[in-house]
Amino acid sequence: MLTRSYDPRKVGLALQYVQLTITEGEISMSVRVDLNISLDGYATTEGGTPDNPMGEDWNKLTAAYVATKTFREWVLHDTSGNGTTGVDDRYGAEYFEGVGAEIMGAGMFGFHTFPDDPDWKGWWGEEPPFRVPVFVLSHRLRDSIDLPGGTTFHFVSATPREVLERATAAAGGKDVRVGGGVSTVREFLKAGLVDQLHVAIAPILLGRGINLWGELRAFEVGFAVRTETAESGTVHITFLRPS
Amino acid sequence: MLTRSYDPRKVGLALQYVQLTITEGEISMSVRVDLNISLDGYATTEGGTPDNPMGEDWNKLTAAYVATKTFREWVLHDTSGNGTTGVDDRYGAEYFEGVGAEIMGAGMFGFHTFPDDPDWKGWWGEEPPFRVPVFVLSHRLRDSIDLPGGTTFHFVSATPREVLERATAAAGGKDVRVGGGVSTVREFLKAGLVDQLHVAIAPILLGRGINLWGELRAFEVGFAVRTETAESGTVHITFLRPS
Repeated sequence: MLTRSYDPRKVGLALQYVQLTITEGEISMSVRVDLNISLDGYATTEGGTPDNPMGEDWNKLTAAYVATKTFREWVLHDTSGNGTTGVDDRYGAEYFEGVGAEIMGAGMFGFHTFPDDPDWKGWWGEEPPFRVPVFVLSHRLRDSIDLPGGTTFHFVSATPREVLERATAAAGGKDVRVGGGVSTVREFLKAGLVDQLHVAIAPILLGRGINLWGELRAFEVGFAVRTETAESGTVHITFLRPS
Repeated sequence: MLTRSYDPRKVGLALQYVQLTITEGEISMSVRVDLNISLDGYATTEGGTPDNPMGEDWNKLTAAYVATKTFREWVLHDTSGNGTTGVDDRYGAEYFEGVGAEIMGAGMFGFHTFPDDPDWKGWWGEEPPFRVPVFVLSHRLRDSIDLPGGTTFHFVSATPREVLERATAAAGGKDVRVGGGVSTVREFLKAGLVDQLHVAIAPILLGRGINLWGELRAFEVGFAVRTETAESGTVHITFLRPS
């Protein structure tokens, strides 16, 4: 394995404490995944329209996260202080903490929106929320893109293991996140490369999209599991690989 | 609809209070479902062996429930007082409260174990835990069976709506539970006949069995949802149809 995760004696303690031990250098980097899924396991951007490009399913999946103070600050650049500050926001803040590099599929970058425009910089805006090197898996190679705030998009055609080596080197000892989409995440899960899987489950049934869970029987073996519910009704489940 | 469920003003209040209002007669009967499922939506008794007839998957699915004080008392007739008394036990106690009749599929009764033995009384033992009239859906009709403790098994060949009418009449104003298995429950869910769906989700991935969630897109619309986590890591999600 490329990574080591938490001391099993500490798993289950409060998040703040886990992060403290990271700061103290007791724990080396992890490969992390965080996804919003439905109760039936789907994430999707199906059903988009010009007015609602991500689709109503996506809006329902992410409503509790989008409402958080952290999302509003980091993604929408809303510094008014508005937004929820409960359990969902704690996970939202954790999302951005301790990550030194990101890996994503071509779809998450937004390649498919303007496939023939060499100047298209993805749909993450002029100041993307990642603020770290981002490795975009694509057979369509092009020059890296530097954007304000610290995000650099690199385009690579590689296996999950190969791109993870590049991202780990770029992360400088911090964690690497496999950001999405679901198909990309599933490749890393099935290859056994993920040390921490956090799903935020909206209690809705979508019945369409890409299912996260297929062919992952007994994934939980060897992981500690933390379950928690938020004020919004969202269920947070985290699988942590002990070191 | 045959049924009415909770006053929407009361949804989300503590379970004890909801049950109090039932006792006071403010709320009429509900059709209830309670199932143990995996994170990927499966319930199953696949993989059984002579030594372990329900299979290891079933044992993992139900481990937290089987450990409760209520299960030990009601199902195993263990009056020692042993067993867990936390959130899982509270749901376990709720399972048996306020139910006046039960509906189950032939498989849950145990028809398939000794299909040709007219004296076979199912695998629920000499004193089954239901203690109410139980309507077993089967094309194999036979005489009703009275057992100690108040359980009577009736065998009926009928549609979900027809058997629900019979069970409702037998329940005397109390709730009717559709007990299982998953295929039977899915028929009632898809027909819109269920007022309260409670799933106890074990944070494990089975990847095989019968999936509860297929073809139930947007089931949650029109239901209030309550999510809660237990000390065991089990996630309890309840969909309640407001009256």
